[in-house]
Amino acid sequence: MRFGIIGTGQVGQTLADKLVALGHEVTLGSRSKDNEKAVAWARQAGPNGHQGTFADAAGFGQVVLNATGGTVALEALRAAGAERLAGKLLVDVSNPLVFSPEGEVTLDPVNTDSVGERIQREFPDARVVKALNTLTAPLMVDPGRLPGGHNLFIAGNDAAAKAETVALLGEFGWPAESVIDLGDIAGARATEMMMPLWLRLMGAFGTAEFNYSFKRAE
Amino acid sequence: MRFGIIGTGQVGQTLADKLVALGHEVTLGSRSKDNEKAVAWARQAGPNGHQGTFADAAGFGQVVLNATGGTVALEALRAAGAERLAGKLLVDVSNPLVFSPEGEVTLDPVNTDSVGERIQREFPDARVVKALNTLTAPLMVDPGRLPGGHNLFIAGNDAAAKAETVALLGEFGWPAESVIDLGDIAGARATEMMMPLWLRLMGAFGTAEFNYSFKRAE
Repeated sequence: MRFGIIGTGQVGQTLADKLVALGHEVTLGSRSKDNEKAVAWARQAGPNGHQGTFADAAGFGQVVLNATGGTVALEALRAAGAERLAGKLLVDVSNPLVFSPEGEVTLDPVNTDSVGERIQREFPDARVVKALNTLTAPLMVDPGRLPGGHNLFIAGNDAAAKAETVALLGEFGWPAESVIDLGDIAGARATEMMMPLWLRLMGAFGTAEFNYSFKRAE
Repeated sequence: MRFGIIGTGQVGQTLADKLVALGHEVTLGSRSKDNEKAVAWARQAGPNGHQGTFADAAGFGQVVLNATGGTVALEALRAAGAERLAGKLLVDVSNPLVFSPEGEVTLDPVNTDSVGERIQREFPDARVVKALNTLTAPLMVDPGRLPGGHNLFIAGNDAAAKAETVALLGEFGWPAESVIDLGDIAGARATEMMMPLWLRLMGAFGTAEFNYSFKRAE
């Protein structure tokens, strides 16, 4: 399958590496055609790894993954182009973290809106699913790095798009029963708003390699 | 030990019941002296259960628990009186849930502030610890209702107050190693902001009796 990845940071490259390792074809997209990180990634990725602009990546992918920061996601997707996203599964992995000069981290949007919702509103023909934004990148594509079962979340308006996302997560190593469906795309608020806890836990645990599992009454 | 509980809802009554069952003495505090729920609770609670105003409860308790809704917490604690809170451990269990007429639930404050922080700012002589606000009331005082180990969080500026909170949680059945210290009182933002996820999970699971446990790399 062909994937377009919007964003060349750690998340984008980790997803791109995994997809190539799984035998898929990937275009890693950045703002400019000659982004150094993207060129370096494509050079070592083998024949199934390509790089280009956001528009190149979105046009190439049968599925598009948004791996930009949440505060720049809409701008990047506008550059990708609504017509290249229409009808496609668009997995939004972003979090709208805002870093103040004093080192405080807050979210924008938050509470009454989310990046996931904004993307779905602005690109109504894309089939947006929020996923994977509650984990550090290495765990996204290799859940076996932690012992036992643990969970992640999906949220979106399109049931078929969520089923395709569960299948993709399955390729990454996530059993279907580990994926909790939070309902419509407004559920993106819930997972984006876990970021403050995630950051505090990273401080408490001294590692980003942790995750949640849920217990419920039997 | 003597406890004052601010708020007569399910959380306040559940905490009050447990404390009495553990052999402590409790005054359940409400806005007015003749609150029906508080009178009914005290009638069945036995000789160690009392009721009165917010001020009565705060004056009675060596430890004070805030079990009001987060949007009315400051008002209730003002009625309790800063002088009756000074020097005491004040465990804040509240969440600032705002319910719109359309049924949407949001938080106020959120993101750049929290109820826990507001309480600590307004009552600087109280030793505020945020705790227990990430669970349904029955689980707060009976973690064994869920199988295996699971976690909760504390946040506060006073290390001794946090140690006293861990000891109290131990009486409720929480092993010390299940309590994750998120750092200073600004960590209250992190746990209050879990509410949107908690609400979505209640919908997904069909029960409020669930909780998180954390896995980390070994």
